[in-house]
Amino acid sequence: MWDNLFQAIDEHYEKMVQTRRFLHQHPELSFQETETANFIADTYKRLGISYQTQVGGNGIVATLEGGRPGKTVALRADFDALPIQEENDVAYKSQREGVMHACGHDGHTAALLGLAEAVLPFQDQLPGALVFIHQHAEEMPPGGAKAMIEDGALDQVDAVFGTHLWASTPFGTIETSKGAFMAGADKFEITIQGKGGHGAQPHLTKDAIVIASQLVTSLQQVVSRRVDPLSTAVLTIGELQAGRAFNVIADTAKLTGTVRTFDETVQKDILEEMDKIIQGTCHASGADYKFDYDKGYPPVVNHKKEAEIILNHADQADPGLTTRETAPAMAAEDFAYYLLEKPGAFYFTGAQLPDHNYPHHHPKFDFDERALPHAAKTLIQAYLNYQEANN
Amino acid sequence: MWDNLFQAIDEHYEKMVQTRRFLHQHPELSFQETETANFIADTYKRLGISYQTQVGGNGIVATLEGGRPGKTVALRADFDALPIQEENDVAYKSQREGVMHACGHDGHTAALLGLAEAVLPFQDQLPGALVFIHQHAEEMPPGGAKAMIEDGALDQVDAVFGTHLWASTPFGTIETSKGAFMAGADKFEITIQGKGGHGAQPHLTKDAIVIASQLVTSLQQVVSRRVDPLSTAVLTIGELQAGRAFNVIADTAKLTGTVRTFDETVQKDILEEMDKIIQGTCHASGADYKFDYDKGYPPVVNHKKEAEIILNHADQADPGLTTRETAPAMAAEDFAYYLLEKPGAFYFTGAQLPDHNYPHHHPKFDFDERALPHAAKTLIQAYLNYQEANN
Amino acid sequence: MWDNLFQAIDEHYEKMVQTRRFLHQHPELSFQETETANFIADTYKRLGISYQTQVGGNGIVATLEGGRPGKTVALRADFDALPIQEENDVAYKSQREGVMHACGHDGHTAALLGLAEAVLPFQDQLPGALVFIHQHAEEMPPGGAKAMIEDGALDQVDAVFGTHLWASTPFGTIETSKGAFMAGADKFEITIQGKGGHGAQPHLTKDAIVIASQLVTSLQQVVSRRVDPLSTAVLTIGELQAGRAFNVIADTAKLTGTVRTFDETVQKDILEEMDKIIQGTCHASGADYKFDYDKGYPPVVNHKKEAEIILNHADQADPGLTTRETAPAMAAEDFAYYLLEKPGAFYFTGAQLPDHNYPHHHPKFDFDERALPHAAKTLIQAYLNYQEANN
Amino acid sequence: MWDNLFQAIDEHYEKMVQTRRFLHQHPELSFQETETANFIADTYKRLGISYQTQVGGNGIVATLEGGRPGKTVALRADFDALPIQEENDVAYKSQREGVMHACGHDGHTAALLGLAEAVLPFQDQLPGALVFIHQHAEEMPPGGAKAMIEDGALDQVDAVFGTHLWASTPFGTIETSKGAFMAGADKFEITIQGKGGHGAQPHLTKDAIVIASQLVTSLQQVVSRRVDPLSTAVLTIGELQAGRAFNVIADTAKLTGTVRTFDETVQKDILEEMDKIIQGTCHASGADYKFDYDKGYPPVVNHKKEAEIILNHADQADPGLTTRETAPAMAAEDFAYYLLEKPGAFYFTGAQLPDHNYPHHHPKFDFDERALPHAAKTLIQAYLNYQEANN
Repeated sequence: MWDNLFQAIDEHYEKMVQTRRFLHQHPELSFQETETANFIADTYKRLGISYQTQVGGNGIVATLEGGRPGKTVALRADFDALPIQEENDVAYKSQREGVMHACGHDGHTAALLGLAEAVLPFQDQLPGALVFIHQHAEEMPPGGAKAMIEDGALDQVDAVFGTHLWASTPFGTIETSKGAFMAGADKFEITIQGKGGHGAQPHLTKDAIVIASQLVTSLQQVVSRRVDPLSTAVLTIGELQAGRAFNVIADTAKLTGTVRTFDETVQKDILEEMDKIIQGTCHASGADYKFDYDKGYPPVVNHKKEAEIILNHADQADPGLTTRETAPAMAAEDFAYYLLEKPGAFYFTGAQLPDHNYPHHHPKFDFDERALPHAAKTLIQAYLNYQEANN
Repeated sequence: MWDNLFQAIDEHYEKMVQTRRFLHQHPELSFQETETANFIADTYKRLGISYQTQVGGNGIVATLEGGRPGKTVALRADFDALPIQEENDVAYKSQREGVMHACGHDGHTAALLGLAEAVLPFQDQLPGALVFIHQHAEEMPPGGAKAMIEDGALDQVDAVFGTHLWASTPFGTIETSKGAFMAGADKFEITIQGKGGHGAQPHLTKDAIVIASQLVTSLQQVVSRRVDPLSTAVLTIGELQAGRAFNVIADTAKLTGTVRTFDETVQKDILEEMDKIIQGTCHASGADYKFDYDKGYPPVVNHKKEAEIILNHADQADPGLTTRETAPAMAAEDFAYYLLEKPGAFYFTGAQLPDHNYPHHHPKFDFDERALPHAAKTLIQAYLNYQEANN
Repeated sequence: MWDNLFQAIDEHYEKMVQTRRFLHQHPELSFQETETANFIADTYKRLGISYQTQVGGNGIVATLEGGRPGKTVALRADFDALPIQEENDVAYKSQREGVMHACGHDGHTAALLGLAEAVLPFQDQLPGALVFIHQHAEEMPPGGAKAMIEDGALDQVDAVFGTHLWASTPFGTIETSKGAFMAGADKFEITIQGKGGHGAQPHLTKDAIVIASQLVTSLQQVVSRRVDPLSTAVLTIGELQAGRAFNVIADTAKLTGTVRTFDETVQKDILEEMDKIIQGTCHASGADYKFDYDKGYPPVVNHKKEAEIILNHADQADPGLTTRETAPAMAAEDFAYYLLEKPGAFYFTGAQLPDHNYPHHHPKFDFDERALPHAAKTLIQAYLNYQEANN
Repeated sequence: MWDNLFQAIDEHYEKMVQTRRFLHQHPELSFQETETANFIADTYKRLGISYQTQVGGNGIVATLEGGRPGKTVALRADFDALPIQEENDVAYKSQREGVMHACGHDGHTAALLGLAEAVLPFQDQLPGALVFIHQHAEEMPPGGAKAMIEDGALDQVDAVFGTHLWASTPFGTIETSKGAFMAGADKFEITIQGKGGHGAQPHLTKDAIVIASQLVTSLQQVVSRRVDPLSTAVLTIGELQAGRAFNVIADTAKLTGTVRTFDETVQKDILEEMDKIIQGTCHASGADYKFDYDKGYPPVVNHKKEAEIILNHADQADPGLTTRETAPAMAAEDFAYYLLEKPGAFYFTGAQLPDHNYPHHHPKFDFDERALPHAAKTLIQAYLNYQEANN
């Protein structure tokens, strides 16, 4: 029934590529994406689709009312870039020094704009309404999602879907999970304040390096002993800096790290256990400390029925697609916030290049542009199946 | 001038050996030495030297007033034995099952009794007074020394000397140090109260084995970081017992150990640091604990001038003796208490056998009996030199 | 179509209870279950169903050929008891001192025997064949499953199903998972051989307690750093015994523990990492060690399609049943071996008593006998659905 | 007998101060002290005392033959300065940016030159010969002492004495010890080469921060368990640097530190134990490492008889002096090399200012210039007593 629609999307392939490459050449950092926002707004203006700018910052929300009754479903694409100097040698290379679309958000935007244009002729036949959420600042906590939601982006919405073009998933594969799909990622910083002194007089000091080492060792217990083995958790200390001379006992040690979980209870328990361990370890040495824990994005937890819509039906959007249920990824996404408010699902659209395989956030990151229509088609398929399932 | 006296001591050699062997055959455990006490008292009775029994327990104090003015100097010998089954095959082997003079206290007593008998004819020429302290219960804290002092053993005394026949010091050598000479030895017991549970559910427990291991590891810092490197300290955990099944998380761990120091300040600091470390480590895991610390004998710290009397003059007591200043020994002695009250010194009288070398407290321990007159002569020499130095 | 069959099972309820109570009163320890085996064999003899005894030990395999073509499906029940003194005050209390059916195997056997009797009249209508596997020695590795398989128990079998009456799952609920369902459980023992000595002379020793503590601390990294956070693993040290006196440095420390995983690769990695950590830690102290690692049962990993049979159809066996997909349990089961050979699934049949809730292996363990027909019905339902799905 | 000599030294007080202040204003860094060397050489030239320049570098050796037979005794003063910007506000403040005599070597040189001039008129009465060793580069290993000795500075010498003006010893006090007096100080650097990676994927990495922490913790055992408690040792890790981002697992950790001992055997044992611990710890994690251990100056170990010369006779050099035996200092000195070759002693000349108390190497370091004649007099007294003792 919707074959014409999927065909229309395919016909917008060149346009999507063109948009993606334009955006790739003009990347903007999180919270500074004004030109990109203007570009998006101009597109909706041109199409005659009503839209709202400056939603929760640089965010844009466009709405296409269908001609038939139904639910309101939001589709989301993010559009910020990263502070990375591109190292690809391509015609559409970033024209901005030290800024690069190294995560594929240019593609997300291009796919969603292409979809809007392709679906427009079908407006009368569409059930319910389509909401296009163009979100700024995904890369930098607190992120744009939270602000856009607070500014009303989901107010009329019944369900929300989103996808990430994913460079380590094979082209042609759609991947997601029925529950926890991406991790919550927090950042912490611990400063141990001991007491420095001469390297030959440890008894007059509180050796910050020894205390920090004890702490790192003890913190291993958080995952090994204090988290349910059936839950997933990572606690990594990424930096440990202490001391400035080989023969002077360090007064201060600074540690930074990250905690990843899929579950707010686990996250909360870890914070409590860390606090106890830091407090006890410093007390054991009479040292002081400062412990800052910044909650990042919560875990992306898909709603079961909406995830099943993706897993069961995405392959209907394009005969070249297969779907698979996957283990959750430890990376984080502020799409999580939408799923805390509304039913929905997030999924990966496979975009691995056959011969150029660099991870997201790498200066040589790139993806297979042929995945752009895959993203657009699976999003609209999700919208259609959601209507059907909630008729 | 005192050549006759030293000759008289030599003439009592056979008697000393006889006394030592009799005592060796009839050893008594600490605080149970009633027969030995009677034997000692009978000797003084026979000699006509006034004495007092039951001083602070089984202790005996005899006093010989000299004919000339001078100071009152105490000489001390201990007389208890150990719960050890003797394995020597000698004529004078212990006749009591499981009890043995395995530390040489039989020799100390024989030497002091021999000295008393030898010196008696010289009474009129002696300056001041000689006090013979025969002390019970050196082997078992709280020991006999403290009780005898509290019961008045040192009341009239100006200085105190004592010696230990020492099986690892060569025969003919007198050894001591001008300050700390033997260690203070304390005992501690730590019980960690965690929370047990199924081996597959660590998150519901407080794993006492992990906490205890963390504690043992952290306690290494007491010596490595918190005691002045120029001070001497040992902290040993001798026992660690936890858990009863491979697949059940232990709720309790019990640790016992010992602390050795030569200095009350260091001892006090160690106790404080241990307390902090135990508290902090248990807090880090939400566990409870019990920490008992029993102070044993304090360190034997010689007084400088009295130690110099030994080091400078002991070789005058016998042409066969040499003296040497030595590093302190980590073993403990309740002679320490006398030195907290009065000037004095404790020293080792070399008694190593040429071909039978077993440590003190060994079932095959024995010593060279030819050292008995060495002990007697150096004690009386110390008394004489002290008089001279404090004239 | 099979309503009559399910009704027949219900009609055997009293008989199942009677059988279960008889077995409960006459429990036998693993590998010693000869009377129970005779009881089972007698039942099949009475029913006229062909059976084989002494399969891989005390195991019994009975086979009922259906009247129609189809697959051969095995249903398994275990029948050994535990060395536990029962503390329940019930009429059917164990009559054997110190032996108790504290895990529900009496129920498993009763349900399967009841099922055999109930299904017999329907023999002609049955597709394929039904194999009843009565397995001994589930409670004690190496277990009976492996031996029975090696002795041919699965030779003609296409698929295998089994269930455990589960006291922490609500009555009326059937629970399983589509992959890993129960953990692999291994046992290890580590002996550290250091060098003992006097508590005051650590430098002459290799302190086994310090080495063991370092080891326990380092082993925390296995789970915290060396296992994929998305995998599940537990490493517990349940026992740590070292030293016999507070003032003697321990020469030996003995540790025992368990490793639980759901994945042979993870299990293998853990063994390798443990080996490296033990070797490195002992090397750092110049100590020797012995490391014994006994692989226990592998993880119970359900086959997806067979698990779906349970999850999608168990509720058709009885209108009072609901099914749910569940997180895997950390407990172990030698049903794992069947699933390594043949497609199949294992599941929990909820048997929680409303007012008497004790865990498996507890002296007061009991279960809701009304769950016996649930077990029987879901097993036969699985057989029927498997036939349908593999027609 | 030598009262005139001591009086002559006192009469050179103003000159010593003048010399010291001139040198203080013109400090030179270790191995770059050419102007200072010229200044010293010019002084001996002016005095008509024979001297040799460029001994082992910038070193100068002057020799004054006495008129009577006797031993040849060397007196040593060092003359290099430090890379420190002076913060004292004094007339004689350093005139060189970032270079300062912050350790008192200007005073050592002034005292020895003043002594040479004062003693010259007494040449005929002097026994044996006086050798003035002016040593460069004490502050920077490998130091000047070793090179000067290799170049013959001690060839004719029977004994050697030296002193350090010491700001934490009270003015008027001469301090030394009869054996170990200053520590040997070594430097080490450890680089742990693990394997970095994403903060959420520890299993693909070898976490250098965790390994380094384990190492620091284990290294505490060197002092707590592996060094004789009666020996002195310090092992300090002064720097620990690892990682560059909170969410990236560090591949490398760099640690630097110092080891202090008074005994070459202990030093050797520590190196061996460190090596074992580093090797074992890295092996346990599959990590590589680099361990560089640079032996610094050996411990300053006084010869007993020569130390007694200082302790027993220094107070004869000046009625205002008292002497005391002291615990060794953990600081290091390359005077150690002279004492490995010849009998001799090193001691502290108290130079604490009453109201300006800053440690050596501090930008506000200064000392009491009235101690300059104390240094000169005690050195010549040592020379005289040595002659007497070795007549």
